[in-house]
Amino acid sequence: MGPEPEENAQIRLMRKARGRTSFPVEDLTTFIYGSPETVQKRRAAWHRVELALDSTDTTKLPPQYAKTSREDLYLDGLRMGKAAWDDQLQHDHAFFEWLTPRYTACNASPFGLTAIFFARTIELMGSPEQKSKWLPLIQSGHINGAYAQTELGHGSFVRGLETTATFDPASDSFVVNSPTLTSTKFWPGALGFSATHAVLMAKLITRDKDHGVHPFIVPLRDPETGKPMEGIELGDVGPKPSYNQTDNGYARFDNVSIPRSNMLMGHATVSSDGSYQKRPDVHVKAAYGSMLRTRAKMIWICAVQLAAAVAIAVRYSTVRQQGTLPYAEADGTETAIIHYRSQNSRLLTHLSRAYAILFASRRANDIYQDFESRQATRDFSTMTETHAVLSGIKAWATTLAADGAEDARKSCGAAGYLAISGLPELVQSATALCTLEGENYVLWQQAARELVKWAPKLSSNNLPSALRYLAGKYTPGQKCTATIPTAFLLPETQLEIFKHRSRRLISKSHRLFSASVSSGDSPSQAWNNNVTLLISAARAHVEYLVLQAFIASVSSMTTSPLKTTMTNLCSLFALTTIITGEAHCTFSEDGYLSETQLDAVRAQVNALLDTLVPDAVGLTDAWDFTDAGLASAIGMRDGDVYARVMAWTRQLPVNSSDQQVVVGRGWDEFIRPALNRGGRKL
Amino acid sequence: MGPEPEENAQIRLMRKARGRTSFPVEDLTTFIYGSPETVQKRRAAWHRVELALDSTDTTKLPPQYAKTSREDLYLDGLRMGKAAWDDQLQHDHAFFEWLTPRYTACNASPFGLTAIFFARTIELMGSPEQKSKWLPLIQSGHINGAYAQTELGHGSFVRGLETTATFDPASDSFVVNSPTLTSTKFWPGALGFSATHAVLMAKLITRDKDHGVHPFIVPLRDPETGKPMEGIELGDVGPKPSYNQTDNGYARFDNVSIPRSNMLMGHATVSSDGSYQKRPDVHVKAAYGSMLRTRAKMIWICAVQLAAAVAIAVRYSTVRQQGTLPYAEADGTETAIIHYRSQNSRLLTHLSRAYAILFASRRANDIYQDFESRQATRDFSTMTETHAVLSGIKAWATTLAADGAEDARKSCGAAGYLAISGLPELVQSATALCTLEGENYVLWQQAARELVKWAPKLSSNNLPSALRYLAGKYTPGQKCTATIPTAFLLPETQLEIFKHRSRRLISKSHRLFSASVSSGDSPSQAWNNNVTLLISAARAHVEYLVLQAFIASVSSMTTSPLKTTMTNLCSLFALTTIITGEAHCTFSEDGYLSETQLDAVRAQVNALLDTLVPDAVGLTDAWDFTDAGLASAIGMRDGDVYARVMAWTRQLPVNSSDQQVVVGRGWDEFIRPALNRGGRKL
Repeated sequence: MGPEPEENAQIRLMRKARGRTSFPVEDLTTFIYGSPETVQKRRAAWHRVELALDSTDTTKLPPQYAKTSREDLYLDGLRMGKAAWDDQLQHDHAFFEWLTPRYTACNASPFGLTAIFFARTIELMGSPEQKSKWLPLIQSGHINGAYAQTELGHGSFVRGLETTATFDPASDSFVVNSPTLTSTKFWPGALGFSATHAVLMAKLITRDKDHGVHPFIVPLRDPETGKPMEGIELGDVGPKPSYNQTDNGYARFDNVSIPRSNMLMGHATVSSDGSYQKRPDVHVKAAYGSMLRTRAKMIWICAVQLAAAVAIAVRYSTVRQQGTLPYAEADGTETAIIHYRSQNSRLLTHLSRAYAILFASRRANDIYQDFESRQATRDFSTMTETHAVLSGIKAWATTLAADGAEDARKSCGAAGYLAISGLPELVQSATALCTLEGENYVLWQQAARELVKWAPKLSSNNLPSALRYLAGKYTPGQKCTATIPTAFLLPETQLEIFKHRSRRLISKSHRLFSASVSSGDSPSQAWNNNVTLLISAARAHVEYLVLQAFIASVSSMTTSPLKTTMTNLCSLFALTTIITGEAHCTFSEDGYLSETQLDAVRAQVNALLDTLVPDAVGLTDAWDFTDAGLASAIGMRDGDVYARVMAWTRQLPVNSSDQQVVVGRGWDEFIRPALNRGGRKL
Repeated sequence: MGPEPEENAQIRLMRKARGRTSFPVEDLTTFIYGSPETVQKRRAAWHRVELALDSTDTTKLPPQYAKTSREDLYLDGLRMGKAAWDDQLQHDHAFFEWLTPRYTACNASPFGLTAIFFARTIELMGSPEQKSKWLPLIQSGHINGAYAQTELGHGSFVRGLETTATFDPASDSFVVNSPTLTSTKFWPGALGFSATHAVLMAKLITRDKDHGVHPFIVPLRDPETGKPMEGIELGDVGPKPSYNQTDNGYARFDNVSIPRSNMLMGHATVSSDGSYQKRPDVHVKAAYGSMLRTRAKMIWICAVQLAAAVAIAVRYSTVRQQGTLPYAEADGTETAIIHYRSQNSRLLTHLSRAYAILFASRRANDIYQDFESRQATRDFSTMTETHAVLSGIKAWATTLAADGAEDARKSCGAAGYLAISGLPELVQSATALCTLEGENYVLWQQAARELVKWAPKLSSNNLPSALRYLAGKYTPGQKCTATIPTAFLLPETQLEIFKHRSRRLISKSHRLFSASVSSGDSPSQAWNNNVTLLISAARAHVEYLVLQAFIASVSSMTTSPLKTTMTNLCSLFALTTIITGEAHCTFSEDGYLSETQLDAVRAQVNALLDTLVPDAVGLTDAWDFTDAGLASAIGMRDGDVYARVMAWTRQLPVNSSDQQVVVGRGWDEFIRPALNRGGRKL
């Protein structure tokens, strides 16, 4: 742990703030992680890995801030990744499959993808023989696998992939090629330097016929030396805003031969004579299962990353004293910035969203589990609706996490711009989630298509479950009937308001889209012209589902001070969604909420914030982040911000004495020659 | 220039798109930079510096992406900075004072601050003798100066600074000290390794009395060796999301003695007997002039940085083909993504904002110049209003630039996450502007205070000029009278809509603030409770001023195809501000605009976008960015995206053969040991 920090003003402020918490924090930790056993197991696993990484002494500068060259960050990722990999081979692996030691998504580590993408694809797409061959090799830790789908020229549009796997009956093998520059595989994690094998998505060509994209297992490297196999060019995509601990890479194939048995044949087969056959009992899109599972998991990651960013910002704001409120008496005492409404309204709103995303992730997981159990019985009837709702929640959660983490970072002022604050890495990591595993604007539109499809059939008896709340007749021009301000704290009022907006936007976007088609536009033109509104409808729909999940989770709690706090937080989420957010998605455009009602909502938000500020530290502590996990000089549990910032800053290699060589070089080569030129015109 | 790129699909798409431009691009370049002479001089200066840096061959990977350690990026900054410094000593310096070779703010270079902060403070705060001593030394290039104000414990709140300069009559000198940890100077650019001298802001203590913060010139380093002077600890603040080319640093002082004459004595003096005297004819806040000038300049930088990000995204979107529109016939041709409404509505909205910020920066500059010429005659009467309006425009412009650049980056999908796209650096650079030189939430509130002050006096004859449009009686409950959809294209309608919102929010926030005070809240509580609304009022006010400036600039153009395009762009800015933006700041909450009217506005936006898409390339080309300046593999003029991405990626040192040493080390130390453990449970 390092030496006990000296008592100072910041430590005292933090202790005092923590002392004001109105509920037992451990109860909330249990509520977040599901059970006391999970909390304990998770803690123990983290502690083992942090001991292995020697990262528990918070007086020491974490290595990722010391050496930031591309090479050094990759080596740091290997070090982190191997500690988690070793631990999961010995213990339960659930705590590292989706999070790395720095609480970023699994694909932040060069060891992170084997289980979740490589093995998973074999499970879903392999034949029984293939599963029994490959899965034990993976389980025994002999394979570090990558999943190679996206190419330089194609991301979202899978049909456009260009890599080919051409069957050669003479050698009973596939010949893999990258026929164009744009067919270069680009982005897959661990592809650059670390993976031994890849599941490669390539166009299957046999008997001169293109059968579309299929999965193949391709050995990439000599497992002894790590050198690429003959005919394969492999490399790194270079520096990125985050995820530099892993080697997102590129790959090109020049007549690389793999045995016929390396095509995953669970869904389609190629015989030794080159004949192609689809297995008759497999749904054409069964492979989407893996993608759906990934998206469901990503929502949980968004909750954790947003909560981590807010935890740092809340702790910093609790001990950072700066100025006094406008018009306040200047008595020499400065105000801790969390007491400024402009600060606490932002931080608590984002905190309420982190919890909202948490409950949304549970709902998403339930929806996915339901789909998976149906899939097991060959029932694919809910695939479209599952896909639509998970797409929408993924787009919503990643947007809120990225924007919220960035706003939390900004709320720390200049301190949030230091890499050692830990915030830039969290922000950039959350930001990537808006793009990877389905670009958000594409996903919003997929969610919207489902809404347009069902909009004319809302009185149907077989509405998908996520749409059932829309059933019945919708009356435009309706007004919210809440008259007393505290009515806005009632869950049923909140849900009614969210429902009205959702119905209004779904109904309207469907009406305008149809009108556009009727007036002679092609459906694609009509879609394009109304896409902003369609996306708003999808967002309003998702926000209804999320509020419903938040309310249901909180109602299930037994009466306690914790339940009171969580109820307030849920109301804060609902009411700040009403008064902030995008104008596209307003609750008031049609007059449903009047200006007077919105003023009442704003007043309630003020009151909720006053109630919740004393619990801000407890609500972030409850996520049970370790100091080593946050790796933030300004966001550690004890609040000792300034001492740690200076201690870490002084340990930076660039400030150490032997690095003055670099600085000396700078002075000799650039600065001294630039100075002392005398008498020239500036 | 490197070899001519081979013709390919991307180059053809770009040429075709550029060919569709409806106006002569050079005319718009002249309009942006002011005169054909300035355009030519600027081009020539950039070209000289780019030749000196050997950065004109776009086939070569720019060095900032190759070596990314803290040390290497600093050396890269010295190299860049010295090229600009040398050029400005020989030529006109206006083209490098506020932009570096990579189009980021001046404080991105370790040579960038001497003129704009160091010399400027001496000009404003020095006595005539001090000016004639120091300014020639600066003009002849003998000093690389820093401006050391912020401390670890204090940024926005200048009164809280703790560094002391205590007068010692025995030695006729000041003794400078950092008495606490939090008094450590933290953040000043070039302080880490590069500056020879600093203007240090410290509390002046003489005869045991604290006279508050005053400026002192402190020599920091031996100009021959670059080593810190006795008693001074200097270092770097470490890695940051951007600005790594400069050495934002920290400094601690331990009994450092400087001659009495090093206190800048233009505004106050300390005699050899230690007596302190303010000069009677100096306004207490005259020193703010420098800060105001900086903020006015920053607005221009926001315009350039946002335009640069949008230029990259527009070029990429012009050649990136991905999928087809929903419901479109799949005929094998993929759509260039700029044709998706979800893409072009974002990019053109941000582009219209880059131009809006450009015109706002001119207005801000006029306001500042007026203040400066009054200041020259000791007229400080407009200081408060100048400060308020520049604060508001700075907060507004930096918010739009940061959010817009990030959205442009996201619009490029995964490609925008590559450092070599140039976008992450631009985004993070724009993001910093929201915090530095006045944190935005602090500045919004300063703008709002001026509004609250004048709200009850809007019928007064001596309204500050920026508020004059608010004069006269305001009627709540008013409705917009526009009935036909094209009415929304009229500047007078647009201004009327913006004016109504501004008046509504100013009136309302003043009313609620006053009511809160009347009900017994302290003014600071009342402020805190209504701060969100107050900020909304400030934003609405600024947006009115900006729209006014945009409209005035465009009206002044002579009739031409360019004027038509700029008129459409101005309408796009106005109408997208109405239909996007924050719910806090809505135009419809009070029913001023009805849902039907908003639908008409949305339809007009669609039509404007259709008209403007063919001009997107021309409107970004007009900013005259060089390929070397953008340093973007995906945003160069010729559109040759994929070839350049692969060429640069292959040149990354981490992918070169000798760097396989690092990779070899990774395999030997981490991967091979992690594999081959056989038989263990995953």
